[in-house]
Amino acid sequence: MIRMYGFWRSSAAFRVRIAFNLKRLAFQEQMIDIDAGEQYAPAYRALNPQAAVPTVIFEDGTALTQSLAILEYLEETYPEPALLPADASGRARVRSLALLWAADFHPLIVPRVRAYLAKALAQDEASRMAWVRHWLREGLTVGETRLAGDAHTDSYVHGNAPSIADLCLMSHAIAARVFKVDFSDLPTISRIVETCLARDEFARSLPMRQPGAPLQ
Amino acid sequence: MIRMYGFWRSSAAFRVRIAFNLKRLAFQEQMIDIDAGEQYAPAYRALNPQAAVPTVIFEDGTALTQSLAILEYLEETYPEPALLPADASGRARVRSLALLWAADFHPLIVPRVRAYLAKALAQDEASRMAWVRHWLREGLTVGETRLAGDAHTDSYVHGNAPSIADLCLMSHAIAARVFKVDFSDLPTISRIVETCLARDEFARSLPMRQPGAPLQ
Repeated sequence: MIRMYGFWRSSAAFRVRIAFNLKRLAFQEQMIDIDAGEQYAPAYRALNPQAAVPTVIFEDGTALTQSLAILEYLEETYPEPALLPADASGRARVRSLALLWAADFHPLIVPRVRAYLAKALAQDEASRMAWVRHWLREGLTVGETRLAGDAHTDSYVHGNAPSIADLCLMSHAIAARVFKVDFSDLPTISRIVETCLARDEFARSLPMRQPGAPLQ
Repeated sequence: MIRMYGFWRSSAAFRVRIAFNLKRLAFQEQMIDIDAGEQYAPAYRALNPQAAVPTVIFEDGTALTQSLAILEYLEETYPEPALLPADASGRARVRSLALLWAADFHPLIVPRVRAYLAKALAQDEASRMAWVRHWLREGLTVGETRLAGDAHTDSYVHGNAPSIADLCLMSHAIAARVFKVDFSDLPTISRIVETCLARDEFARSLPMRQPGAPLQ
């Protein structure tokens, strides 16, 4: 069975979890407690020198890091249902939107950056929360502009089936909800988020539904 | 002819420029002066709502943003020479390393983040430079660990031909040099950077060789 080293709160693990569920792939997730520093254990660092999650181990022993690289590998090795469009320009649009959320914004709010803000720049909790909320909101605002002005946007980010871009949007939007960033004024984003949440593959992948998440 | 809206100093435009040169694709680059705020002009924002470079317009009118999405599109539409390995796990390794530099670290040092540090967090020039240098160094240190411990690393990041990961390493390493981050203690990274710089396709793509760059 596929094994993933993840963490309930990780946006990157959340994206990969949705893909496993959409593609109906059985997987076991072992939680690496980021809050307790388990990612720095030598055994885990040997697997993932960046001390980040997720790391995915496939049945043939292939060990992969970086959520977008894992999603591309899943697409190549388990192509059904497709999470990338059939045409090259559609794939480019989906990848560009995925990167907007997963590359341009997510890396700004991860623990290592918040730790630098706290330690090297002496930013207090309020300032760090404002930082996180600023970039989460910015990613959603830019996303709304891109989605609302493009005829390829439909029930999902691209057409009528979920793609890698929806996975990245969801990980961003759910983080925004956790950090109390209001985006009800962004109609396209809000609508797609609700469409995804109504699907079981997305809903049971949610951070709050994973082992280790605080009771609500 | 392919047109790219770029900027001499942009790491993301640099990556795409190297790919054009390796694939022997004729292209015209129009510089968007980021320092002068040209990226915020309404005509450019209509093309790229994120107000970032690069944006690439192909001969059939396809307009693409996000350097990694552009590189994947180039690979699909102009496959020779290949900038991704032939095997799925090799492609995953290359994409993972590309994302390490282009997604996990580059977004931390772009103008919009430095502007937030200056304005919202009142960080002076010295603090902002320390921020940039910290993340550039971190990306190279983690990269060295991943490359040095992996038998797939050879003349280049993956085997004996340049891949998308070398393009991302180069954009990161050259930024490190510009910001005076020493990485001579990282032997694998240093060696691959020199190997790439010795090739004309990389050398003539360098930021300092583009129109608008300061005279040295």
